[in-house]
Amino acid sequence: MNESSPVTEISDAESIEPNDRPWERLEELADAGDAEALSAYLDSLSVGDQALALSRTDEAHHQTVLTTLSVEDAAELLRHLSESQAADLVDSLPAEDAAAIVQEMPSDEQADLLGDLDADQVSAILQALPNAEAEAVRELTAYSDDVAGGLLVREILRFDRSTKVADVINTLSENADEFRDYDVQYAYLTDENNRLVGVLPMRNLLFARRNDPVADIMIAEPLSLRDITPLDDLIDFFDTHHFLGVPVVDAEGKLLGVVHRNAVDYEATRAAENDFLKSQGIIGGEELRTMPLFLRARRRLSWLSINILLNIGAAAVIAIYQDTLEKVIALAVFLPIISDMSGCSGNQAVAVSMRELSLGLVRPTEMVRVWLKEVSVGLINGAALGLLVAIVAIVWNGNPYLGLVVGVALFFNTLIAVSIGGTVPLLLKRFGFDPAVASGPLLTTVTDMCGFFLVLGLATAMLNRLL
Amino acid sequence: MNESSPVTEISDAESIEPNDRPWERLEELADAGDAEALSAYLDSLSVGDQALALSRTDEAHHQTVLTTLSVEDAAELLRHLSESQAADLVDSLPAEDAAAIVQEMPSDEQADLLGDLDADQVSAILQALPNAEAEAVRELTAYSDDVAGGLLVREILRFDRSTKVADVINTLSENADEFRDYDVQYAYLTDENNRLVGVLPMRNLLFARRNDPVADIMIAEPLSLRDITPLDDLIDFFDTHHFLGVPVVDAEGKLLGVVHRNAVDYEATRAAENDFLKSQGIIGGEELRTMPLFLRARRRLSWLSINILLNIGAAAVIAIYQDTLEKVIALAVFLPIISDMSGCSGNQAVAVSMRELSLGLVRPTEMVRVWLKEVSVGLINGAALGLLVAIVAIVWNGNPYLGLVVGVALFFNTLIAVSIGGTVPLLLKRFGFDPAVASGPLLTTVTDMCGFFLVLGLATAMLNRLL
Repeated sequence: MNESSPVTEISDAESIEPNDRPWERLEELADAGDAEALSAYLDSLSVGDQALALSRTDEAHHQTVLTTLSVEDAAELLRHLSESQAADLVDSLPAEDAAAIVQEMPSDEQADLLGDLDADQVSAILQALPNAEAEAVRELTAYSDDVAGGLLVREILRFDRSTKVADVINTLSENADEFRDYDVQYAYLTDENNRLVGVLPMRNLLFARRNDPVADIMIAEPLSLRDITPLDDLIDFFDTHHFLGVPVVDAEGKLLGVVHRNAVDYEATRAAENDFLKSQGIIGGEELRTMPLFLRARRRLSWLSINILLNIGAAAVIAIYQDTLEKVIALAVFLPIISDMSGCSGNQAVAVSMRELSLGLVRPTEMVRVWLKEVSVGLINGAALGLLVAIVAIVWNGNPYLGLVVGVALFFNTLIAVSIGGTVPLLLKRFGFDPAVASGPLLTTVTDMCGFFLVLGLATAMLNRLL
Repeated sequence: MNESSPVTEISDAESIEPNDRPWERLEELADAGDAEALSAYLDSLSVGDQALALSRTDEAHHQTVLTTLSVEDAAELLRHLSESQAADLVDSLPAEDAAAIVQEMPSDEQADLLGDLDADQVSAILQALPNAEAEAVRELTAYSDDVAGGLLVREILRFDRSTKVADVINTLSENADEFRDYDVQYAYLTDENNRLVGVLPMRNLLFARRNDPVADIMIAEPLSLRDITPLDDLIDFFDTHHFLGVPVVDAEGKLLGVVHRNAVDYEATRAAENDFLKSQGIIGGEELRTMPLFLRARRRLSWLSINILLNIGAAAVIAIYQDTLEKVIALAVFLPIISDMSGCSGNQAVAVSMRELSLGLVRPTEMVRVWLKEVSVGLINGAALGLLVAIVAIVWNGNPYLGLVVGVALFFNTLIAVSIGGTVPLLLKRFGFDPAVASGPLLTTVTDMCGFFLVLGLATAMLNRLL
């Protein structure tokens, strides 16, 4: 509905492609300062288009959009965006406005957001928050994302154990609006020291006498976890227990909040995905193309420059055998093939080991078992690939010994690649390293070196047959 | 607690490493046929150790374990395992036993499991199930995993809209045991044709008059989705709406079940993870090292054999320039470096494009925008990498023109790699292909070819300077 463009589309087509450039309409509405129209327009966009429109407006408009909206709508908008985009937007806001929006978010999302902001902005926001709120936020952000304390929500239904059934029902009924966004399957009961003593399934209220204390219908001695419980144990807990959430307590048994299954699932899959990207050396933080150019270039380059040094190290093997290569130049055609194929076989083995480690199907000490399993696959696949490359070499070059050299080299290098690829993640894990982060680069450097050494070493030994 | 080993460990050490080889104890208990002891032992194991123990026992014992356990416990055990391991176990069971266990599972997990079984076992299980149950399972498995129909649970609280509040409360109270595993925040109300007419938040029951029909306190005209809603739309729905679940209806508006946010999150992240593995050409189904050797070898080889053909194609460029290479053998040292580094830069661009596509931050038509963003990063990183490799070449070889050739080649090939890596996923998506599946291999083949061509073509043009 651009003013300059006549409305000629039929309404059906419009509903499919309502606005080709939603950021223009967004800026227009933000400039007009009409909170209601702006909110209605954002609601009409899909989540993807909201993110798109915001990513294409400039920083001044980010601020106008977020401050024109009501704080509730602004908070709602931010939670739909990816974490990096949300942090980017909030970083550009005045601390007062940012604090007002942060106050509207559930506590686990507050912690996530503040963890992604610039340190200066975080302290400015904490200053702008009311003291009690700032204290609570500070406590939450003290936990990292991969322990229970970093994933919990504080917004739970919490009653003293002496509360009467009727009073609980009245509180619920009077505050229905406030509780709408809560997870209201359970209430949590505490003693006078705020220690968790029971869990109350809300449906138990249906069958209870109204004058009894809720302690009579609670589940006593409920399962709970410490705030410092690591993510792996949380995953195990929700795998074993069919709960939607679990209460979290501090060292003194005081109730801090609840960790929901959702939050654990999300962190678990995000960790798995990041692990894999890391193992391939691809990640350098979450890049979006709207970030500043030099930041993007620097992040990518940090990994590329390590990789090129490793590559140069491997290529040094070729330099040692220059004389052989000069005499049998056909070998040069096969060096990149051997290098790439071995890297590929090795990465398959890395992927299987990482998966089996994460499923608990293999222990870090079972190196021999994994090695035997990998060698058996390596024998078959190495033979198949070696034979194929040998045939190609013979057909192209005519010299059967060239085929023999490259085929045998690829066979043995496939064995080496799967052996390293399969066992290195176990070894790294066993000695306390992140198996994801180093497997990929380590693997390709070593298999490149071995591959070049095998091809050129074999060729040197058989040089008179190859000439 | 192996009978042959004296109990000498102190209890503390035992609780840390309760049994080094849990599969031996598992086989022992299964052979003894004591369901209770077996169930208790499995409960004492972590989820990882359950999976490990089962993966290390033979097929005969799989069967003994699953049939010795009660069907409830067997179903519970299976749902903790990875899908491929669970399917493997159920495939080895007699159809009667398998059917009894399947009947105990929630409907979305039934559908998942049956989708992973052998076709023969599926039809045998369907025959062994009661007719009504078999029909329902058949309906569910007709949907694929990535539409609402394949993700829904049928186990929901469902009442006719004329039911009285008091009757709903009585039903809940009488069947409390059966409903324990249900998601009981909402009940769903249908008309006489089983069409969805309303949603009843259970807490509304707390404040309702017992003789009113539930229709009086329901949310009328609730949001619902069709059974054929694709995963992408489900993700959008839960991004936009703060619900734990959404009712799903067929073409006639009949209520089929509920899709939970959990199930959508799980499928979404699994899809994202698989996409990435696919884009790197690593996946060939979910491999576990307990699978038969030839299956594992074949799956890995299917991808490796495509890749080696692509590699040979790229290497053919080297063959064309053999004469140049023979004269300036030092170039051979740099060919694998150029190939590997360009692949790496290109994969970074692929990863960013896939991420931006999945977040909706870029549209498949915005090729030029992405290309400009990539070229600007490529100019910086290509210059840095090119300079580095040029310096290495000059220091090692002494000929500044060798440095010029490899540096310029790497500079331009980095530009080519990020341009292709950034835009190919958009292009594939635009023309209806899965952007994940082909980006990686396509990219490396083309960048290898271009890289070899650039190095050797430049060297040929400057041959007299290089000699």
